[in-house]
Amino acid sequence: MNEVLEQIKSRKSMRVFEDRKIENHIKKEILQAAFEAPTAGAMMLYSLIDITDETLKERLSVLCDNQPFIANAPMVAIFLADYQRWYDSFVYTNCNPRKPGEGDILLAMADAMVAAQNTVVAAQSLGVGSCYIGDIIENCEQIREILELPEYVIPACMLVYGHPVEAQKNRKKPVRFEKQYIVSENKYHRLSEEEHIEMHKVKNEGSGLKNKNIKEQVQAFCKRKYMSEFANEMNRSASSYLDKFRNK
Amino acid sequence: MNEVLEQIKSRKSMRVFEDRKIENHIKKEILQAAFEAPTAGAMMLYSLIDITDETLKERLSVLCDNQPFIANAPMVAIFLADYQRWYDSFVYTNCNPRKPGEGDILLAMADAMVAAQNTVVAAQSLGVGSCYIGDIIENCEQIREILELPEYVIPACMLVYGHPVEAQKNRKKPVRFEKQYIVSENKYHRLSEEEHIEMHKVKNEGSGLKNKNIKEQVQAFCKRKYMSEFANEMNRSASSYLDKFRNK
Repeated sequence: MNEVLEQIKSRKSMRVFEDRKIENHIKKEILQAAFEAPTAGAMMLYSLIDITDETLKERLSVLCDNQPFIANAPMVAIFLADYQRWYDSFVYTNCNPRKPGEGDILLAMADAMVAAQNTVVAAQSLGVGSCYIGDIIENCEQIREILELPEYVIPACMLVYGHPVEAQKNRKKPVRFEKQYIVSENKYHRLSEEEHIEMHKVKNEGSGLKNKNIKEQVQAFCKRKYMSEFANEMNRSASSYLDKFRNK
Repeated sequence: MNEVLEQIKSRKSMRVFEDRKIENHIKKEILQAAFEAPTAGAMMLYSLIDITDETLKERLSVLCDNQPFIANAPMVAIFLADYQRWYDSFVYTNCNPRKPGEGDILLAMADAMVAAQNTVVAAQSLGVGSCYIGDIIENCEQIREILELPEYVIPACMLVYGHPVEAQKNRKKPVRFEKQYIVSENKYHRLSEEEHIEMHKVKNEGSGLKNKNIKEQVQAFCKRKYMSEFANEMNRSASSYLDKFRNK
């Protein structure tokens, strides 16, 4: 296994960091990985906000489902799906552009995530841990206001980075579903009820959780995550962001 | 610069491949990188379709804005943002779930793209080139039908992979916009008209295209890409996919 595959394999989310800055040249290399990422039509349909203000970090940690570890992270970056930049370029050069649509913003979301993941892999290779914060999609009104986002910009993700403490490094990487439940050939394979139960069972076995009642386990997970207040808020907020891209 | 950063830096899109298969163990390592990727709440909100059927590849190459190189790629994978799997799991375990919303599917899009980009970096490290095909978002009716996609699944991207021919390897990586136009600190920076013109000018200089008329250049680009039929089709199709996630 080469060094790249090793790093991809060993990478897991890190949430607790040593109380020390990421050196400037390391931070620069992490961000540079974003700019090296593939991008649709070389358009770079994303922007990046480097969050350095401590008060702002605290505000974001509250707005992102109250997760204090965000405020304690030495490096915080927000990746934005950005069609504003190109739209403005088109306007300033008298192109008389249509408004960006839902396909445009999905492409921009893709661009932003591809750039984000490159920074995650780069950070890992430099001994820097990271964690994605999807909750940045919540609370669109406040997020728009404090980050001064114009209408054709949507937060794709937030990432926190830092030097992980020992306990985090030693944490086991969470077991994934087996690939036969994720990959199919030539067409989508919709899992049967039996396959669903088996999928969870096999994952539990890999995680050292034998003999769990799958129904109770999935029900508890559903209640805690999918039916939670933050999930409802994320859906409301995402809808509000996407509304700008709808042709009514 | 470590090996990971080197690979990230040297990676560029490859569209023309040698006429030889990717060996099975290499293909397996490329796909494994997807499963190692970070995923929201360890949910793996994506699925992957491995396109091995030659007739299907040809059909996809037509449906994705008529790009014949897709049909000639030795390996083709479609990454799907997939909330169907978890929704079905919730149903089968009597969770009485709400329908997935727009926040849910944005999170799934993010998951799919993060997994996709891990395969791109892994492939690069194994000497395998790749190219993203965003056009997989177009023609939702036909794509849904031939891939048998259920309602809570959206194509996030298609990727083609292969051993690049020499001419592709020697191609210059396209120059990106300078980072001062992409990164801002603590809040979004909306570029002024002057900054827009400067941004394109600086990129042109880096690309060896001095003295181009920026207005004419951006107008031609806008017409060819943004105001094109395929862009309209992508917007229509994306809207149709997202419609399933709207709470009306």
